[in-house]
Amino acid sequence: MLKVRFLGFDVFGTVVDWRTSITRELDAFLRRHGSNLDRETLADAWRGLYQPSMERIRSGQRPWVRLSVLHEETLDIVLKQHGFDTSRLSREEFRNLSRGWERLDPWPDSVEGLQRLKKRFVIGPISNGNVSLMVWMAKFGRLPWDVIAGAEPTQAYKPQPQAYLGSAALLDLPPGEVALVAAHNDDLAAARSCGLKTVFIPRPREHGPNQRIDLAPEQDWDVVADNLIALAERLGC
Amino acid sequence: MLKVRFLGFDVFGTVVDWRTSITRELDAFLRRHGSNLDRETLADAWRGLYQPSMERIRSGQRPWVRLSVLHEETLDIVLKQHGFDTSRLSREEFRNLSRGWERLDPWPDSVEGLQRLKKRFVIGPISNGNVSLMVWMAKFGRLPWDVIAGAEPTQAYKPQPQAYLGSAALLDLPPGEVALVAAHNDDLAAARSCGLKTVFIPRPREHGPNQRIDLAPEQDWDVVADNLIALAERLGC
Repeated sequence: MLKVRFLGFDVFGTVVDWRTSITRELDAFLRRHGSNLDRETLADAWRGLYQPSMERIRSGQRPWVRLSVLHEETLDIVLKQHGFDTSRLSREEFRNLSRGWERLDPWPDSVEGLQRLKKRFVIGPISNGNVSLMVWMAKFGRLPWDVIAGAEPTQAYKPQPQAYLGSAALLDLPPGEVALVAAHNDDLAAARSCGLKTVFIPRPREHGPNQRIDLAPEQDWDVVADNLIALAERLGC
Repeated sequence: MLKVRFLGFDVFGTVVDWRTSITRELDAFLRRHGSNLDRETLADAWRGLYQPSMERIRSGQRPWVRLSVLHEETLDIVLKQHGFDTSRLSREEFRNLSRGWERLDPWPDSVEGLQRLKKRFVIGPISNGNVSLMVWMAKFGRLPWDVIAGAEPTQAYKPQPQAYLGSAALLDLPPGEVALVAAHNDDLAAARSCGLKTVFIPRPREHGPNQRIDLAPEQDWDVVADNLIALAERLGC
């Protein structure tokens, strides 16, 4: 890790608690419409369409579009699947709900951890979120990014190699001077196969109280730390 | 200006004092080599090759490359033109000097002004500098950018329309919700013709004590302010 100059972060789940935040966004929305649909079920269902929506792009069935566009499409699908009549929504209300992904709360350690890591490293998302989504989320949660790397600048969705390699190239660094920080073993495995260093941060409540995946490291990642403050301490920040 | 959400900044000259900083970089370099070449003449000559080097790309004679690449090429040219034998330089020393553009001092008002403006607006370069150049410069000078727009994400050099329009699109905003902040009337004219709002900040010493251009606004720009702190005050930040 001594050569690393850029810490690239997975964001959804690693830096922010998307499930609690999206459940809250859905709750406000469903209350307004007098709906008793289960909020957490809906949040999980919406997130469940995340990988399939990107997979059509990764496989070449569809040209690259921003994650914000995919969020709009999958919200429409998930509301209809649960019997909610989306035709009664104004364009503005629908768009505001779909942009709930810009209003995700950081985990309690994220802001302090990032502020400390920023003193020694360039820090930024290597996320599948697009640039404007990452920027507005950073404004909302006070995430002090130096740069936004990841899907949009590289036109590739993780775990495609170009998402990692292109993020290193954006910083004009060889892959070995970049580390991916993530709560997901599969993301880290893809980054390692591209030559990046790897940092695992367990987030055992990302998927709620019954989470069964990513509770522990599955490879000998370069660093494992309990949270981003602990990571800052480990790296001497 | 009430609708503006993204303040995009010209950087060289508007936010940082490139001439004093590059003169200092050249001075340290030339001292090491016992050269008495005039530092300011050399700085101006290097910067003088900036527009011609981009013009070959704008005109389609050459595919887009990063400004850092152009800086390396023009440094080699300018040293040779002034009789300096570049063959005696190590690759590392040459590269370090050419990266002097990552170590430019902010004007005295820039950091405080940007910190205040950042509270209400998304702030970021709409510069011809590439992403890594902008990121390392921000680390050096503590410029608190939210995002790096401009030449690299849009693959266009100002004043090409795509550099402005693509920067607005990167933030998912219509051009009228973006303002360009610049010390150069021609940059603002190009931004205005793309529908951006315009803010003029005079920097009467950018080119040294004998500067004759851009001393005053040449159109009725949306805002004119003496410096970035005055701009923050004008915009209620």
